[in-house]
Amino acid sequence: MPRLNPDRLFPLDSKSRDLARGLYKSVENLPIVSPHGHTDPRWFAENQPFPDPAQLFVTPDHYVFRMLFSQGIPLEKLGVPRVDGGPTETDGREIWRLFASNFHLLRATPSQMWVEHALQDVFGLETKLSATTADATYDHVADCLTRPEFLPRALFERFKIEAIATTESAIDPLNWHEMIRNSGWKGRVVTAYRPDAVVDPEFDGFADNVATLGEMTGEDTTTWNGYLAAHRNRRAFFKSYGATSSDHGHATARTEDMPQADAAALFAKALAGKCSAEEADAFRGQMLTEMARMSLDDGLVLQIHPGSSRNHSAPMMAQFGRDKGFDIPTQTDYVRALKPLLDAMGTDPRLSVILFTLDETAYSRELAPLAGVYPALKLGPAWWFFDSPEGIMRFRQQTTETAGFYNTVGFNDDTRAFCSIPARHDVARRVDCAYLGNLVATGRLDEADAYEVATDLAYRLAKQAYRL
Amino acid sequence: MPRLNPDRLFPLDSKSRDLARGLYKSVENLPIVSPHGHTDPRWFAENQPFPDPAQLFVTPDHYVFRMLFSQGIPLEKLGVPRVDGGPTETDGREIWRLFASNFHLLRATPSQMWVEHALQDVFGLETKLSATTADATYDHVADCLTRPEFLPRALFERFKIEAIATTESAIDPLNWHEMIRNSGWKGRVVTAYRPDAVVDPEFDGFADNVATLGEMTGEDTTTWNGYLAAHRNRRAFFKSYGATSSDHGHATARTEDMPQADAAALFAKALAGKCSAEEADAFRGQMLTEMARMSLDDGLVLQIHPGSSRNHSAPMMAQFGRDKGFDIPTQTDYVRALKPLLDAMGTDPRLSVILFTLDETAYSRELAPLAGVYPALKLGPAWWFFDSPEGIMRFRQQTTETAGFYNTVGFNDDTRAFCSIPARHDVARRVDCAYLGNLVATGRLDEADAYEVATDLAYRLAKQAYRL
Amino acid sequence: MPRLNPDRLFPLDSKSRDLARGLYKSVENLPIVSPHGHTDPRWFAENQPFPDPAQLFVTPDHYVFRMLFSQGIPLEKLGVPRVDGGPTETDGREIWRLFASNFHLLRATPSQMWVEHALQDVFGLETKLSATTADATYDHVADCLTRPEFLPRALFERFKIEAIATTESAIDPLNWHEMIRNSGWKGRVVTAYRPDAVVDPEFDGFADNVATLGEMTGEDTTTWNGYLAAHRNRRAFFKSYGATSSDHGHATARTEDMPQADAAALFAKALAGKCSAEEADAFRGQMLTEMARMSLDDGLVLQIHPGSSRNHSAPMMAQFGRDKGFDIPTQTDYVRALKPLLDAMGTDPRLSVILFTLDETAYSRELAPLAGVYPALKLGPAWWFFDSPEGIMRFRQQTTETAGFYNTVGFNDDTRAFCSIPARHDVARRVDCAYLGNLVATGRLDEADAYEVATDLAYRLAKQAYRL
Repeated sequence: MPRLNPDRLFPLDSKSRDLARGLYKSVENLPIVSPHGHTDPRWFAENQPFPDPAQLFVTPDHYVFRMLFSQGIPLEKLGVPRVDGGPTETDGREIWRLFASNFHLLRATPSQMWVEHALQDVFGLETKLSATTADATYDHVADCLTRPEFLPRALFERFKIEAIATTESAIDPLNWHEMIRNSGWKGRVVTAYRPDAVVDPEFDGFADNVATLGEMTGEDTTTWNGYLAAHRNRRAFFKSYGATSSDHGHATARTEDMPQADAAALFAKALAGKCSAEEADAFRGQMLTEMARMSLDDGLVLQIHPGSSRNHSAPMMAQFGRDKGFDIPTQTDYVRALKPLLDAMGTDPRLSVILFTLDETAYSRELAPLAGVYPALKLGPAWWFFDSPEGIMRFRQQTTETAGFYNTVGFNDDTRAFCSIPARHDVARRVDCAYLGNLVATGRLDEADAYEVATDLAYRLAKQAYRL
Repeated sequence: MPRLNPDRLFPLDSKSRDLARGLYKSVENLPIVSPHGHTDPRWFAENQPFPDPAQLFVTPDHYVFRMLFSQGIPLEKLGVPRVDGGPTETDGREIWRLFASNFHLLRATPSQMWVEHALQDVFGLETKLSATTADATYDHVADCLTRPEFLPRALFERFKIEAIATTESAIDPLNWHEMIRNSGWKGRVVTAYRPDAVVDPEFDGFADNVATLGEMTGEDTTTWNGYLAAHRNRRAFFKSYGATSSDHGHATARTEDMPQADAAALFAKALAGKCSAEEADAFRGQMLTEMARMSLDDGLVLQIHPGSSRNHSAPMMAQFGRDKGFDIPTQTDYVRALKPLLDAMGTDPRLSVILFTLDETAYSRELAPLAGVYPALKLGPAWWFFDSPEGIMRFRQQTTETAGFYNTVGFNDDTRAFCSIPARHDVARRVDCAYLGNLVATGRLDEADAYEVATDLAYRLAKQAYRL
Repeated sequence: MPRLNPDRLFPLDSKSRDLARGLYKSVENLPIVSPHGHTDPRWFAENQPFPDPAQLFVTPDHYVFRMLFSQGIPLEKLGVPRVDGGPTETDGREIWRLFASNFHLLRATPSQMWVEHALQDVFGLETKLSATTADATYDHVADCLTRPEFLPRALFERFKIEAIATTESAIDPLNWHEMIRNSGWKGRVVTAYRPDAVVDPEFDGFADNVATLGEMTGEDTTTWNGYLAAHRNRRAFFKSYGATSSDHGHATARTEDMPQADAAALFAKALAGKCSAEEADAFRGQMLTEMARMSLDDGLVLQIHPGSSRNHSAPMMAQFGRDKGFDIPTQTDYVRALKPLLDAMGTDPRLSVILFTLDETAYSRELAPLAGVYPALKLGPAWWFFDSPEGIMRFRQQTTETAGFYNTVGFNDDTRAFCSIPARHDVARRVDCAYLGNLVATGRLDEADAYEVATDLAYRLAKQAYRL
């Protein structure tokens, strides 16, 4: 018997369940468009086998290891590397055993469903993970990974990925992307422009990074105008590797639109390392507006991912570094924060700014009302902790009545866990179809319209909004 | 086949759907009490035909035109007037075509349901709006509008409106209301006292408005006491035109209860145009408390509608003026904000303050706990963006357990779209009956009690709370 | 016919309803573990009859009397004592009549269900409360109360309470607990350490209270180190009466971890009554961290109950004192507030901090992400206004996907209404089983796992998390 219920996530009354089933059937096999995520372009460049099951499912997945850590399992035992290079578990089988024997901690979480989906659909395993089945499942997956049909490019094709975006720093040389292009392989892997290292005065090595940006572009990044020119140049370089978007992970959604002379002065202060925290924040806000202005020229879509209090635990940051599950959402204001950018360009339909949130209270209060009137704004899908059955449903229930469907942009998987990509898109498609089925059954949407919307949400809107 | 599903918005399991159907049947045809809204008293005074379908359904409805604008359709093409008097579309048929061909943008929004309800029930049209049907539907509605049974008073009677409140500025002469009264027509159209122009030091022309208030009332509004007397006088005048409430649309729910000498000094500063932003805010807060005090004498119910960041886009405000869909909700605190007023009068059962919100997070956290203990407080219904199937259901789910039903006040349609009034009340009645049906089916409410509550929510509470 | 629907609170579709029924059957009769509440230890010490129905159901229950008050019924008529000792109703029958004739005000509130459950299951009454049935129901309950099987200890045993925690001030002598211990009765009634009076510089009589603490413990509480030693001593004393937890009801979740010298200086200032509001707040924050440090040694679990704006109405506080239904939730931040404590000890699995909230927006945004990674953190159940069918369901829907089940701690009844204890646990068990039934039916949880989780939520996690 398959682990996965074929009707999972559908409504339970027969009327809307049948509608959801029909809608899902129409989108189940559509290609995957993955316009925002964190897969490693090296996988597709080198096309080497993934090392072992633990390194595929556990060690890189902060959703999984944060939950195990919360119940007292040290990160070292899960193979998470230490900043000081000290010893951590390297035996994939040992890590897998610990994971399998604690798999009950993930009950009713999206991670449970993603893992079970990947094991069943990608690796053909219908066994339930537990201490008892740890070794057998490890052997099975490890064996698969040695076979050609489990190489990164083969999986990419099997997953029916029509296009996938990775995310690279503005000063990344894009070597892996170049290698993919030169390989002759037809898979569409594009980059995205992530300039945190060169727009955030509080980023480690900001001034050096800006100097590097200057070298890479041949622009004089010691001046404000040269610095802006370097961004334009670099964005064009990223575009030449398929980029259609930039991505910005600031702590808040703050934007500024100060006079250019003031911005130039603030930039000089930032380069000199003399910005106060408030000035650094203002500079980041200014740079969002500058990026939006560049976007009017080069067409890169601007993504804003605010609201995470990153690396919340000082001791864990010291021991294990960034991205170890200690990023905690905080309240995020959009109404005041975005006003400078919106006053400058918000009614220009050529601009496309995609907003994300980790503060669900903003859905109905701020984001849907903003996106429901400003032509330049669209709503990104339920993000991070909310990329889940309940989270996606809340997103639709709290945004659709005010922003409609057409101010949203389809689904982002936003993942570094490659094998979870089909599972994540499947969950989103199921929940969207459940939502649409309910709308039809309660007289809020025509059935024929629901079929059109289902395709829009599963496929078409992502391509259109991200210009892919 | 009718466009509208006769079971729309009911639960999908047979048990609670049957209960909801029965409950709805018992309230479906109750008269409409519309205690708060923005219909134009001129319609009922002159009783002239509505001009054309676009001017009835599109041009005045910010819910509709904001969604079309968000997808890149210029407001000029929808006939929305410009501040500079520059050209905008005047051909109703052209506007209607644009509306009909973009009607899919409103999928699953309440506007879609309101428009379809009005077309079907008011105009007898069961056609789906689209580019293809644009001309035929336009012709049909335009033809209806020429007939006597579609004149404002005829529709008023056909809609079974028992009483409707419009909203007028404190310095409005109430000429249209006088004309209605003198006409001998029996329709009950009452006004409501909206003093923003004379209580908000930041309102355009505040000092002039206060002077006008003085002239209209024969009071010396250059002094604090004269100013308060003018308000009392003007409230009595509004009461003579049926007003049972005042209405206050401040940016926050802030109240103050400063010593009268301080209030007088602040008033003098406000008249002299010398208030800081903080002082202006304090003055508005003081005036809410003063209005509450007057309410103890004259019995006008006090409505507070806070939390909108109005006219968010500076360029759109400059081009098109107020009320063009750019009012965006923000976080709203009630607990600290209302304390001065509540300490002064909150436990007096003679006072009735009706609270609204655009910040749904306040429902369970602040509003229900406050209304569930202070005799002077009642909760207004789900408002503005939340006057929708999901919004009304969230309101009930998040307030009932703490505030009960009897600290709520029934439904407000709050609309300037006359033909949507029956549709809006119908949606509210259906969702309330769906909620009640679910409570009965899950053993939380007796069926007989649910019938009583259904009538309370659809009809009785609005009359009682607004003293209509 | 019983008043209570045997399927109450279960899902309405047959698939998940059947699952919920089965799950509920497996936990329905499990013993009650009540790790946090406000029952009076005197009841169990003296084992005297409860005085009359009104004093059991109305006068001490702020949920009930706040709702009646909100509709204009004076607290005096409900027998709530006045601060000035002035006259209030003392005739239980009169109070009961007022309660019964206004019982409709509680429709669809949890109080209605708790009262009806207690009347039916504890007193065998299946009559609906109303003006008509007031006298008969009063007589019936009053008669019961005279019988031995309705004495406190008999009810305790009948309710199958395995363990119950009361809450006492740090300077309470625990005489009733001593009397219980000496009585030879086997019922497990433990205390909990509530030090507000001696950790909050703004508490009435703070300095005197600290002096009393010194006398009770033989420590020199005029010095910081002596004061800390006194806490350690007193915690040990509370442990000797079974305490396994401390409880902290601060206005915010603020913690501090200042150098000990700074803490000592601030303590001196607090004792001298010279703290500013900000300094008092910082001191409370410091004491949370100190309590956590002591917890590492003595194992008392730390409960944080923040976010209530207590005694909101100044006139009601003056007339009736604390805890009269005027405690109103406010926005509560956890991410910044807890950082000092978490940086100090948050990753230590020996520490157990249980977090509560009155701000439901924190569930998915802050609390689940924090508890889903920090080993020292667990989430307390839906609290106070949210200890209700909708509230408990929202808690599960908004926390499980990120924090899982095993970072939550089962149910707290948190009540002073003794007869409502079985009803409250029953509601929590039903709603949890409804939630689990839905997860199984929608393919998110295996049925066998759901049975295990049901027992965990109803029984095992409370024992484990509270070390009972």
